[in-house]
Amino acid sequence: MTWKEKVHEVIYEADTKAGKVFDVALFIIIVASLVLVILDSVEHISLEYHTLFVTLEWIITIFFTIEYILRVISIKKPKNYIFSFYGIVDFLSTIPLYVSLIFASSGALLSLRALRLLRVFRVFKLVRYTGAGSSVAVALRKSIPKILIFLYSVVIISFIAGTVMYIVEGPENGYTSIPTGIYWAIVTLTTVGFGDIHPVTPLGQFIATIIMLLGYGVIAVPTGIVTAEMTKENTRKNTQVCSNCGEADHRDSAEFCHNCGDSLHKEQEKEIKNED
Amino acid sequence: MTWKEKVHEVIYEADTKAGKVFDVALFIIIVASLVLVILDSVEHISLEYHTLFVTLEWIITIFFTIEYILRVISIKKPKNYIFSFYGIVDFLSTIPLYVSLIFASSGALLSLRALRLLRVFRVFKLVRYTGAGSSVAVALRKSIPKILIFLYSVVIISFIAGTVMYIVEGPENGYTSIPTGIYWAIVTLTTVGFGDIHPVTPLGQFIATIIMLLGYGVIAVPTGIVTAEMTKENTRKNTQVCSNCGEADHRDSAEFCHNCGDSLHKEQEKEIKNED
Amino acid sequence: MTWKEKVHEVIYEADTKAGKVFDVALFIIIVASLVLVILDSVEHISLEYHTLFVTLEWIITIFFTIEYILRVISIKKPKNYIFSFYGIVDFLSTIPLYVSLIFASSGALLSLRALRLLRVFRVFKLVRYTGAGSSVAVALRKSIPKILIFLYSVVIISFIAGTVMYIVEGPENGYTSIPTGIYWAIVTLTTVGFGDIHPVTPLGQFIATIIMLLGYGVIAVPTGIVTAEMTKENTRKNTQVCSNCGEADHRDSAEFCHNCGDSLHKEQEKEIKNED
Amino acid sequence: MTWKEKVHEVIYEADTKAGKVFDVALFIIIVASLVLVILDSVEHISLEYHTLFVTLEWIITIFFTIEYILRVISIKKPKNYIFSFYGIVDFLSTIPLYVSLIFASSGALLSLRALRLLRVFRVFKLVRYTGAGSSVAVALRKSIPKILIFLYSVVIISFIAGTVMYIVEGPENGYTSIPTGIYWAIVTLTTVGFGDIHPVTPLGQFIATIIMLLGYGVIAVPTGIVTAEMTKENTRKNTQVCSNCGEADHRDSAEFCHNCGDSLHKEQEKEIKNED
Repeated sequence: MTWKEKVHEVIYEADTKAGKVFDVALFIIIVASLVLVILDSVEHISLEYHTLFVTLEWIITIFFTIEYILRVISIKKPKNYIFSFYGIVDFLSTIPLYVSLIFASSGALLSLRALRLLRVFRVFKLVRYTGAGSSVAVALRKSIPKILIFLYSVVIISFIAGTVMYIVEGPENGYTSIPTGIYWAIVTLTTVGFGDIHPVTPLGQFIATIIMLLGYGVIAVPTGIVTAEMTKENTRKNTQVCSNCGEADHRDSAEFCHNCGDSLHKEQEKEIKNED
Repeated sequence: MTWKEKVHEVIYEADTKAGKVFDVALFIIIVASLVLVILDSVEHISLEYHTLFVTLEWIITIFFTIEYILRVISIKKPKNYIFSFYGIVDFLSTIPLYVSLIFASSGALLSLRALRLLRVFRVFKLVRYTGAGSSVAVALRKSIPKILIFLYSVVIISFIAGTVMYIVEGPENGYTSIPTGIYWAIVTLTTVGFGDIHPVTPLGQFIATIIMLLGYGVIAVPTGIVTAEMTKENTRKNTQVCSNCGEADHRDSAEFCHNCGDSLHKEQEKEIKNED
Repeated sequence: MTWKEKVHEVIYEADTKAGKVFDVALFIIIVASLVLVILDSVEHISLEYHTLFVTLEWIITIFFTIEYILRVISIKKPKNYIFSFYGIVDFLSTIPLYVSLIFASSGALLSLRALRLLRVFRVFKLVRYTGAGSSVAVALRKSIPKILIFLYSVVIISFIAGTVMYIVEGPENGYTSIPTGIYWAIVTLTTVGFGDIHPVTPLGQFIATIIMLLGYGVIAVPTGIVTAEMTKENTRKNTQVCSNCGEADHRDSAEFCHNCGDSLHKEQEKEIKNED
Repeated sequence: MTWKEKVHEVIYEADTKAGKVFDVALFIIIVASLVLVILDSVEHISLEYHTLFVTLEWIITIFFTIEYILRVISIKKPKNYIFSFYGIVDFLSTIPLYVSLIFASSGALLSLRALRLLRVFRVFKLVRYTGAGSSVAVALRKSIPKILIFLYSVVIISFIAGTVMYIVEGPENGYTSIPTGIYWAIVTLTTVGFGDIHPVTPLGQFIATIIMLLGYGVIAVPTGIVTAEMTKENTRKNTQVCSNCGEADHRDSAEFCHNCGDSLHKEQEKEIKNED
């Protein structure tokens, strides 16, 4: 086993003890780095601990740089990693400080704030720690096409509701344009209801009432979609496997495989024979 | 094939290449037209690009005019189209500019703003692109009677809640009349909660608390209705019946009956034979 | 058939033509009466049409008085009606105007506003028109014990959340007392979010964040309860009836009655025999 | 039966009449004590009834002290009780007044307000009265791992959404730091929508619109998880297995197997025979 293979085992797999330690250490550093980004955005904290924050940011950046280089070196096909989702995330998590040095020397200090955005991409490094293949994810992925059709309808409803409110209430009551009206309609349909804009005229309040009742019925739809998909997912789990063709997706009451027509109870029958 | 039939194929069907190109082009023009309506409503944009917007609006209107005329000409029974949902939508999407010309000449410039409302009907042209027969739509349509009974109850609850709050809080705390109270009750029951009106007295806050907890339990109902209907819809899809034992409760992917093991495709096989 | 029986048929049953006409007329008068109550609460309308409103209110009151007297006379056991839910509602819908006369003569004009509350009880007269035995109502009634346990937990959570916020934010940020804190907690947990009171300190905002995420998970519970009950209700409907004992609540895949053990397919078997 | 056993029966069990009386009395005192804590926090009430409140608080504290001592004495292994959830709750419910005496004598009057927090723990004494083993609780407990994964995703989304809004809207529109942005994102995603902070710029409103639509789809997930778990729980209850054919999927009320028609109570019948 070469040193590259050893490194690969440590950073890509969590089977060995070294691998697990690396995973936990990485997790802590990511979270620490995110806490740093958050605290850095609070002005009075940022001013007080400026030197400490810069130092810590450099330590974290160097750590991520080493991690990135090791990941590229230790994998057989570096291209697969570099252009994968995690490859891009790791890259974007590393460069902000280097880029800010270049910007600083060229005098474009204003863009430094936008660079903070890039550091936030580090949060995606945490996605590695979620089981991506969980049954929740499966049910969600299957619901996406239906939810998209649904969102399409919501957007159409918002468009009409927003325009109607723009005409009824008008700019004097905060509905300054159709986009503002649509923004209000979505705030209302999703039941968020900030209250920054709200109907003032009796007619506007009446129409808003209808929109809200509509939203009330409509909020049931994505819930219904996901729930139906999840219930399905649940039922699918408890199933017998056909000993002939391997099909596993049978009903609870099935006697024969719906795929090949073979009896599902052969093994049980054998067991009964063996017991005799 | 006459030219009318050719036109019919292009604008009514999406099977041929020309038909698909027409569909995509129409989709882009509708969306562009809606973006135009939206931007036109933002005052400072509207003032700056006035000439451009008028020109584009004329181009779009002429395109919709041609589309409308071709749809009327190329169909066998024009009446069926003209008085159908899409016929009316297409008509209302076309006329605003023409009507505004007449209004402008007669000096009634004030009504021009209301005419913008008619242009918004173009959004309904987008409905053509949603699969109307999707299982979501089916489940929704079946839930409507139950949801109506439910909304009826919500309206009755809102009526009482609104009146009680009007009496308890009174005009001095924003509940200026029973309609305002009902408006507040619906804003609260649907969990939108704008906050433009809210209870101020301790008793009012206590009653609001009970209304909110009620709304909390009540929001479950439309969700329950739609979800139950969707779960049903999911189960219902498997409509093949075994020709041997009559079992009907098969999975979509079933090839053989899970009850007797007989092939589910016998009839299809026969049909294929008969066609030979 | 005596005249009492005829009156009974008209006002208690909707089978005959006269009964249907009475039902529709009553429905219109109730709704008209409610619209009157609503409009009467809007000050500027109330002042303008004062005489008209008083006249209409008298007509409606006299109509309800006649209806109430007829209902009492035409029924065999008047006590059953008078002390039933609808009897009390009908009584309370009739008396406000009479009581206001007495109050007016005794000079207590201030209480007139509270009397309006009684007129609102007329809304309950509309409940007669909703099918009380619908499957939605059944599922809801079965969910009530579970929802009560749930509300009990929500109240306990609100109590703690409200107290914590009262201590953390304090009266200077709007949390003037524990009841106010509890009011805020329920406004937040039910996702209504008026915004009349909201956390201002960073610690308060952090705790609010946790409360909201908790509420996010918790709102799923009543929905889950009602949905599970409704899905159950749905499954229960599509069922075969046992020809031996009359039990109807069988599974779709049942071959024998789970109540008496008799074959469920006897009739089908007979039909098959008859066809031979 | 020693007096210790008698006390144990009264305070730990609700079988005897004395035990039931004790339970009801305790329930009333806990609720009364909580009402006292609540009213005490309302300044003008607290000032007016100061002496009454202090007296009542002493009576309640002495009652809880006696209860606590009796619970410790009457149980066989006091350690099990003292360090159990209810033991700690009972202890924390009793001490605040005693501690406040010590603090008062040492002059640290400022901390008295924080001591009120401890009295709130009495609400947990109410948990004893909820059936902890209800099917709702079971379904919730089983949903926790999935809901945690889900909350993890929500936190990641909030983090990104909050940062983006901080950059787009900036401190001048209320998004003073990333933590504030995250607070706003959670307020929005959970559809609470206080409105204390809200987007002002068109771009901010557009991004907020997308976040709300996302939240709209996302709120379906915990509901789906809990509902699916509850539907499962409902189905799982029917646990009788037919001793003849092994079919397990029976209704609760089933007397005979729906698959083979055999009695489901054979074993019970045998057991009854054996007992004879």
